[in-house]
Amino acid sequence: LESSHEEQNAMESDFLDWLRKQLSSAAHFPLGLSDDAALLPQCPGDRLVITTDMLMDGVDFEIERCDVQRAGRKSLAVNLSDLAAMAARPVAALISLALPRRAGRHLAEELYRGILSLADEFDVVIAGGDTNSWDGPLAISITAIGTVSEHGPLLRSGAQVGDTILVTGTLGGSILGKHFDFQPRVNEALLLSECYTLHAGMDISDGLSLDLARLARESRCGAVLEIPEIPVSTAAQQLAASSNDGRTALDHALADGEDFELLLAVPPAEAERLLADQPLKVQISPIGHFIEPLGLWQSTGDGALSPLSAQGYEHPL
Amino acid sequence: LESSHEEQNAMESDFLDWLRKQLSSAAHFPLGLSDDAALLPQCPGDRLVITTDMLMDGVDFEIERCDVQRAGRKSLAVNLSDLAAMAARPVAALISLALPRRAGRHLAEELYRGILSLADEFDVVIAGGDTNSWDGPLAISITAIGTVSEHGPLLRSGAQVGDTILVTGTLGGSILGKHFDFQPRVNEALLLSECYTLHAGMDISDGLSLDLARLARESRCGAVLEIPEIPVSTAAQQLAASSNDGRTALDHALADGEDFELLLAVPPAEAERLLADQPLKVQISPIGHFIEPLGLWQSTGDGALSPLSAQGYEHPL
Repeated sequence: LESSHEEQNAMESDFLDWLRKQLSSAAHFPLGLSDDAALLPQCPGDRLVITTDMLMDGVDFEIERCDVQRAGRKSLAVNLSDLAAMAARPVAALISLALPRRAGRHLAEELYRGILSLADEFDVVIAGGDTNSWDGPLAISITAIGTVSEHGPLLRSGAQVGDTILVTGTLGGSILGKHFDFQPRVNEALLLSECYTLHAGMDISDGLSLDLARLARESRCGAVLEIPEIPVSTAAQQLAASSNDGRTALDHALADGEDFELLLAVPPAEAERLLADQPLKVQISPIGHFIEPLGLWQSTGDGALSPLSAQGYEHPL
Repeated sequence: LESSHEEQNAMESDFLDWLRKQLSSAAHFPLGLSDDAALLPQCPGDRLVITTDMLMDGVDFEIERCDVQRAGRKSLAVNLSDLAAMAARPVAALISLALPRRAGRHLAEELYRGILSLADEFDVVIAGGDTNSWDGPLAISITAIGTVSEHGPLLRSGAQVGDTILVTGTLGGSILGKHFDFQPRVNEALLLSECYTLHAGMDISDGLSLDLARLARESRCGAVLEIPEIPVSTAAQQLAASSNDGRTALDHALADGEDFELLLAVPPAEAERLLADQPLKVQISPIGHFIEPLGLWQSTGDGALSPLSAQGYEHPL
């Protein structure tokens, strides 16, 4: 607004100068920081996918109590995890910041250091962004772009009755640290989609049971979980042991958000081959299969099924 | 964070159901609202450009005092203006919202109504987004994607010594209403870039003198403004008349942000042809030319030049 424009100092170009120095790869993306929009790379034969996630102080982290670089890293990592969910290769990201007025410049630099460390690791080019200060808390909005080859995109809607449910890694308790430091399963998704037939997939961001129910619904089938097969994390066990809320480690594995592991629907014979190969550094576990009756189910051991309630994080509105 | 996840109600899918109903064109973009990322359309021969802008309560509008739909419309319009600046045709947008917790659902719907009215007007498909609630004020982050034909993209860096500086519309005083209701110059930019040789261009978002100085710097030349030729808006005159701050209508035209008009560098003969044609519904005015000496200058009438200070809105950090 008019009055505030007049009061403000011309620090923007100074910060952009700093940022340009950090972006060693900016030469490959010449328009992002000098023009009103950035040109996307042309990848003949590949198709582009795009995703966006906004992270907020007090919701996704407590900026006063956490390592700012870890918060910056996380804000890009959740977007890369969404690209992994589509078996897409990350290409570029745009970074928008709403910075608390007093913390501004230093906070922006620390966030970018965290963002850029992960961007470098996955060859993600920062193609632009919008850096602002305001009287509100920190908000970080990132949009990420990736390419899918002829093997992709991996969708939520492709699971077929009889498919095996596979999951990477271990689940639950990410609040103890993994929600910051998780490795987006980009390389894992690319390798699996190249070497195996995958019918459907997504990343587990809001909890295994809730996200599996969503995948099954998009595929118009149901899903059965073999409860004893669910890979419960050490963090889930620690959380259950240290808290009096009555939730077991399994409860955490079923319902905790921010695991950022891959959830896949794979034809049974292909799943057997994949499980025998174990082609990733991270473990892959079979945790159930898809069935015709809609909804989420658990196997009770004697071959019978009982309904399982889908629990996890739903964005409130 | 863990505890807040547990407390929150499952209203997300309800809002997404509402949103899907509003998005009549969603069928053309099937993955945006059901998968982790959206597939971008393939436009053989065209190249994609991308831009992002974040608008915040208390900075870009006062949400308690304004029409919420106008704020929503503005948040998309500023992004479309950035695409117009590149002579790009808008294709898709992703919408991320940080909503104050209590106002949530109703505010989200009103914002979307404003966004969608403009999206429909420019055939922009909503390809995805991220809707959140928090304890902070409203923030809206939009990423827009466009295509450029063989005529584009229009860059800031192409102005040549001798080029005429052209501007659409009238300048200054947008705080009186235009900063909400401006028409992004998308169709104007597409028509001009198709029918005329344009060397460089941008949209005026932070004030004529500041943005012209930026364009000249990117083009490694200087710019001279013919002060009497600057098209001063009625709003700038009203603002000067009603305020005691000593700023003239011309001051407002030179330094007020959020005009969202096109600023162009056009070879002189081509500029003459364009000005004779006046091919747009909105007026186009010649306001100066580019010269070799770097910096921003004003013509003093007798052929001499004096330095002009670049004033406008710079994002503080």
